[in-house]
Amino acid sequence: MAKNKFKLLQTDTGTNARLGQLRTAHGLVNTPIFMPVGTKATVKTCSPRDLVDLGAEIILGNTYHLYLRPGHNIIRQAGGLHKFMAWKKPILTDSGGFQVFSLGASRTITEEGVEFKSEIDGQKHMITPERSIEIQNALGADIIMIFDECPAHTTDRAYIESSMQMTLRWAERCRRSHQNINQLLFGIVQGGFFADLRRSSVEGTVALDFPGYAIGGLSVGECKDLMYETLAVTAPFLPEDKPRYLMGVGTPEDLVYGVSCGIDMFDCVMPTRNARNGSLFTTTGGIKIRNAQYKTDFTPLDPNCTCYTCQYFTRAYMRHLHLENEILGHRLKTIHNLHFYLSLMCGIRFAITDGSFTKLKDQIPTLVQIGQDVSSSLTH
Amino acid sequence: MAKNKFKLLQTDTGTNARLGQLRTAHGLVNTPIFMPVGTKATVKTCSPRDLVDLGAEIILGNTYHLYLRPGHNIIRQAGGLHKFMAWKKPILTDSGGFQVFSLGASRTITEEGVEFKSEIDGQKHMITPERSIEIQNALGADIIMIFDECPAHTTDRAYIESSMQMTLRWAERCRRSHQNINQLLFGIVQGGFFADLRRSSVEGTVALDFPGYAIGGLSVGECKDLMYETLAVTAPFLPEDKPRYLMGVGTPEDLVYGVSCGIDMFDCVMPTRNARNGSLFTTTGGIKIRNAQYKTDFTPLDPNCTCYTCQYFTRAYMRHLHLENEILGHRLKTIHNLHFYLSLMCGIRFAITDGSFTKLKDQIPTLVQIGQDVSSSLTH
Repeated sequence: MAKNKFKLLQTDTGTNARLGQLRTAHGLVNTPIFMPVGTKATVKTCSPRDLVDLGAEIILGNTYHLYLRPGHNIIRQAGGLHKFMAWKKPILTDSGGFQVFSLGASRTITEEGVEFKSEIDGQKHMITPERSIEIQNALGADIIMIFDECPAHTTDRAYIESSMQMTLRWAERCRRSHQNINQLLFGIVQGGFFADLRRSSVEGTVALDFPGYAIGGLSVGECKDLMYETLAVTAPFLPEDKPRYLMGVGTPEDLVYGVSCGIDMFDCVMPTRNARNGSLFTTTGGIKIRNAQYKTDFTPLDPNCTCYTCQYFTRAYMRHLHLENEILGHRLKTIHNLHFYLSLMCGIRFAITDGSFTKLKDQIPTLVQIGQDVSSSLTH
Repeated sequence: MAKNKFKLLQTDTGTNARLGQLRTAHGLVNTPIFMPVGTKATVKTCSPRDLVDLGAEIILGNTYHLYLRPGHNIIRQAGGLHKFMAWKKPILTDSGGFQVFSLGASRTITEEGVEFKSEIDGQKHMITPERSIEIQNALGADIIMIFDECPAHTTDRAYIESSMQMTLRWAERCRRSHQNINQLLFGIVQGGFFADLRRSSVEGTVALDFPGYAIGGLSVGECKDLMYETLAVTAPFLPEDKPRYLMGVGTPEDLVYGVSCGIDMFDCVMPTRNARNGSLFTTTGGIKIRNAQYKTDFTPLDPNCTCYTCQYFTRAYMRHLHLENEILGHRLKTIHNLHFYLSLMCGIRFAITDGSFTKLKDQIPTLVQIGQDVSSSLTH
């Protein structure tokens, strides 16, 4: 058994929130942490320097996208994903599972793995657990994930159960084929919204002894109550001395709630994607920057924000850039939203340290409101 | 007569190249200078911080675009274009003339001014010389331009002549209506490719006594020889003690040739627009970054370049970002191309200082080759 890379520093008294440190080949990560998503070897619009300025400690890369373009062999030749994209801090790659299953009709799942047609050129590809590890080894991220099946939450219990069992067998195959000790391979718990299936997935996964555990399948369009319930009956059963990663989640209030359940790591496209859509998180509420009310609003996006965007630019200017689809605007909006998320996590870590996390948790309704302001702008 | 803001520091012995300094309300500009184009209140993809890091001393804004969106009144309310876009150094705005005349069929020219339909909402607008100055006063750039007519170079001599005469009358109207002494109003010399018309345009314009003079109508698709000939018979007749600005020009070799004719200021969309198209200037030749040959080329865009892009990123990565149309790629390519242009101007100023400008001018064929590599990529 490898030496434990995770150090649990403190546990909150009122909740299950934890403060920790995860040691990786590219440095320490302070948890709880939010990981900006860098799908195609770039956190969209941001340079590595922008991310360092924002205080990002770890970012995520998507195996599926990088496998198709530019191809993992090119990234291997470049000396790995870190060198390819000039990012010196830790990276986590997913296994490609979630993306491949999202392809729907154009993929076939067997015990062996998943066969799918490339959306780029129609060519057939096969990703097996072993192949996913091989690709992730080539990419060279600090944390890599087992290849899991992520079934739709509307699927019946029988399918969810057999899928969860297959994911356990795939997890074992991944573990066996992964040899690089510089990359931490995390297991993934599945089981839909069935508490007993989640429990047996936890048991089966933990029995394989991974250096970290993720909860998958909780960001697939279900209602929030169901996600929170499932999280509450899953997270506490994961080993206390290992990092816990809630995949693809979520809104600001999801982060606070997840931390209160004992989650240490999060990732989500929400801050970056919403930014490009002009939906901005601020401490005084969500903003849809295209709205006419900001036409002559010469105040910053958020009067309480210290990001580069809020230091120098006004809502009126940001609206202008947004309406003109100017590239600078997309970057400035992304910097602002990522700053909101990363500051929130910083505030969470601080609150755990000084025993005020329960008080911070009371602010969830405010965060819910901000999130609603922001997401409503996506549907109108 | 206002105090001269231009200081001629040195004149080259072998050519007409000059070293100077122009004092503006937002600081000194060292000439010869290249001005990156910031059409819609942003040099596309770049933040003000990027531009400062690149050593840009002055940028250009387009009156026509800013008048239509967001509107000069919003920019006036913001406290002017500098504050609106958070750029603290000098700005030059054009008069809107060139853009309005480019509208072709949807505009009507009379002695009074130009009536045109907005390409945004079809609404009718009228820009007169007085209106152009009013808009430019609202934008508040350090250097503003008279409203001129810029006829197609294929137009007959009679039209070019009467148009040039009308531009002189418009110049006088602009001069009369411009009251803000913090903004330097430059005259514009027209006259097509007729040496005698250029001469009489110079005489008429200089008689109005502007703090600076531009040469217009020389970047309108004509062949290069014709442009160089016309430049050579126009520039030397402009007052020695005033800055000379060659509008909308040009390629790297155009800058060197223009300087050798005594030009002090240039602007062109070439470095920024080509960057977004993936056409990059390097000291070892022009690069079309999408080409397959760069797939596994893990060297910088230009081994001799010190820009942020070349310090951290490889051709393989830049190709990947370009093919994926990633916003970060557009910014990194723009930073590189602007660095090429601004370094060239820096090299030109240094060469004039130490008497080696003639030697630098001998490298024009190399620059021509780089420019050809770059522009050929736009047509394939």
